[in-house]
Amino acid sequence: MRTFQVELKRVVDDSYEIEIGFELMDKLIEDLKAGLVGSIRRFAVVTDSIVKELYGDVLLRKLREAGFAADLFFFPEGEKSKTRRVKEQVEDEMLAAGCRRDCCVIAIGGGVVTDLAGFVAGTFGRGVPFINYATTLLAAADASVGGKTAVDTPLATNLIGMFNQPKKVYLDIATWNTLPPRQISSGLAETIKHGCLGDEELFVFLEHHMDEILRVEPAACAYIAEANCRVKYQVVMKDEKETGLREILNLGHTVGRAIETVSDYRLLHGEAVSIGMVAAAKLSCKLGYMTETEAARVKNLLAEAKLPTAIPDYIDREELVRKLYTDKKVRDGRLRFVLQQGIGHVVRFGENSYAAPIAEDAAREIIMEM
Amino acid sequence: MRTFQVELKRVVDDSYEIEIGFELMDKLIEDLKAGLVGSIRRFAVVTDSIVKELYGDVLLRKLREAGFAADLFFFPEGEKSKTRRVKEQVEDEMLAAGCRRDCCVIAIGGGVVTDLAGFVAGTFGRGVPFINYATTLLAAADASVGGKTAVDTPLATNLIGMFNQPKKVYLDIATWNTLPPRQISSGLAETIKHGCLGDEELFVFLEHHMDEILRVEPAACAYIAEANCRVKYQVVMKDEKETGLREILNLGHTVGRAIETVSDYRLLHGEAVSIGMVAAAKLSCKLGYMTETEAARVKNLLAEAKLPTAIPDYIDREELVRKLYTDKKVRDGRLRFVLQQGIGHVVRFGENSYAAPIAEDAAREIIMEM
Repeated sequence: MRTFQVELKRVVDDSYEIEIGFELMDKLIEDLKAGLVGSIRRFAVVTDSIVKELYGDVLLRKLREAGFAADLFFFPEGEKSKTRRVKEQVEDEMLAAGCRRDCCVIAIGGGVVTDLAGFVAGTFGRGVPFINYATTLLAAADASVGGKTAVDTPLATNLIGMFNQPKKVYLDIATWNTLPPRQISSGLAETIKHGCLGDEELFVFLEHHMDEILRVEPAACAYIAEANCRVKYQVVMKDEKETGLREILNLGHTVGRAIETVSDYRLLHGEAVSIGMVAAAKLSCKLGYMTETEAARVKNLLAEAKLPTAIPDYIDREELVRKLYTDKKVRDGRLRFVLQQGIGHVVRFGENSYAAPIAEDAAREIIMEM
Repeated sequence: MRTFQVELKRVVDDSYEIEIGFELMDKLIEDLKAGLVGSIRRFAVVTDSIVKELYGDVLLRKLREAGFAADLFFFPEGEKSKTRRVKEQVEDEMLAAGCRRDCCVIAIGGGVVTDLAGFVAGTFGRGVPFINYATTLLAAADASVGGKTAVDTPLATNLIGMFNQPKKVYLDIATWNTLPPRQISSGLAETIKHGCLGDEELFVFLEHHMDEILRVEPAACAYIAEANCRVKYQVVMKDEKETGLREILNLGHTVGRAIETVSDYRLLHGEAVSIGMVAAAKLSCKLGYMTETEAARVKNLLAEAKLPTAIPDYIDREELVRKLYTDKKVRDGRLRFVLQQGIGHVVRFGENSYAAPIAEDAAREIIMEM
């Protein structure tokens, strides 16, 4: 018996910049000309059917006018497109269009697009660079920091994917003007979540400026875009691989993701998370980590953002309880919840744990009450 | 316009050990008990239909006897299983069996199994650890160092995948005894390739000990197993991301991979590479990098290993030429070949390039001659 040692220790630098502003396509082109992705001259613009019409085609034209080789690949809008099958279609179309390892993916759209396109880029030719051009508040809140990419499967959301960092992220607030009000609200769920778990000042800002935000007023939107990056970065930079601290970003997601699936995506992600946050607040309250008043402030703020705060009647509650077990935080068959400590903090349960084991009965009780 | 800087610079240690020996399953169990993958107690054994019967079921039993939770997932034997669809099936079965982020994948089998299972592990729950237990010479030669995982698509082989390093690799030479002679020969193609591109001593050893190797005599086999690791490691450790030096491992693969696809996998990977190496040697000879004698030694050694050295009659040569363009090394639409410099070296074409642009006519001429 002999052994052979493979030494693979190295420094990896995945640092990148997030650009926050209005109408950033020309800045993107400028950055590409200045070598943002080295000498790459071929781009695969990946988007969905709605963003294609609004912004994707414009970006494609600008890229071509700038002398780059560029093609656009799109899929039907919505969370239902976040599948392995759609990933496969995009890959096959990219291959057929001649994309190989010397291309760069530009994801333009919301969270579904950036999740899927980032995953495509991570496995295309064993990894090509990608850039996120986020056109929704949700993508700005959720997808701009953390490097998480994934698709859903019939059994659970976001379980097949990888960590893959973009070369740069553009948060174009001007694009929020074309979002349907329901999408704005959905994006606000993650923003409110960030306030709840790590930034009381952001929470209070939201309590005072919700009207301006819902009207997409630039100053208020730029403030929350940056606050989202800051909160998420502070969590993620300390824990790139979601072993401990990063779990806190799952506040509201245990019930949220399950209800999103059980609703068969009639609920948008943010809407499902909103309901999940109310459930988490109730649980936190019941376990003594929040006052009734604090839990009410969370629920009120979600309602102010025009988000649902109760489980819709069409949801089978027993199915929802069963679906909780597909959550990624489940360990040894036990449910685990992130709990809120007042406003702006979460409960820590030990050295590396921010998710508390919760008995199924306790979870069921909350769900039955809602 | 404001910017937010995401700093993600860190040290990554993907080092691991390769264990070379006879009947290593008990050693694997011992290593798991000693914490090879930390506190993980749940294992997904991934294998193919043939290796399942020979070794997979045995390993499953041993894991369970040792007190671990373990399930076995298998797919039909052969390169045709290296698809996104089979990856999806394995994932769905793992999810249905209750595997989540707290599991570890053990790939047991040849190159197809380790490529596919390593890719499954890399994207399951955004990455779970994996271990390679290699039961073929090809896997020992090709899959044990480098971290390459991938599946094939209708348009090209190995273009969808990722770099993912195992926690440990076991090269169990005892398993080679159950390999069909054709598989032994196929594995030898990569071993001969390693001799050709980086280790003249290995090449000469093969010239003198081919009979013992074909009879799977332990001493000779252990020698080549370790030599394979050494050559590949020396190439890969200098270049983990295949930007430059690592390209030399593609010696014989430009024509090889194309012919493998055009043959619709009637040719095994090593058989296709063997033909590709003869093509590369002819090209190297024509361009003055090898003597006729050296090119003949390569062809003879491949023939000694009972590998094909000519393009089979059933291959459509024009289709083969077209298929060359799906090669990963293609840049700006131009074919690129790795060329051999005598025995034990390759030609360097610049700072970071070991693949020469070759005119389609030159490639066609070689292919028509064979």
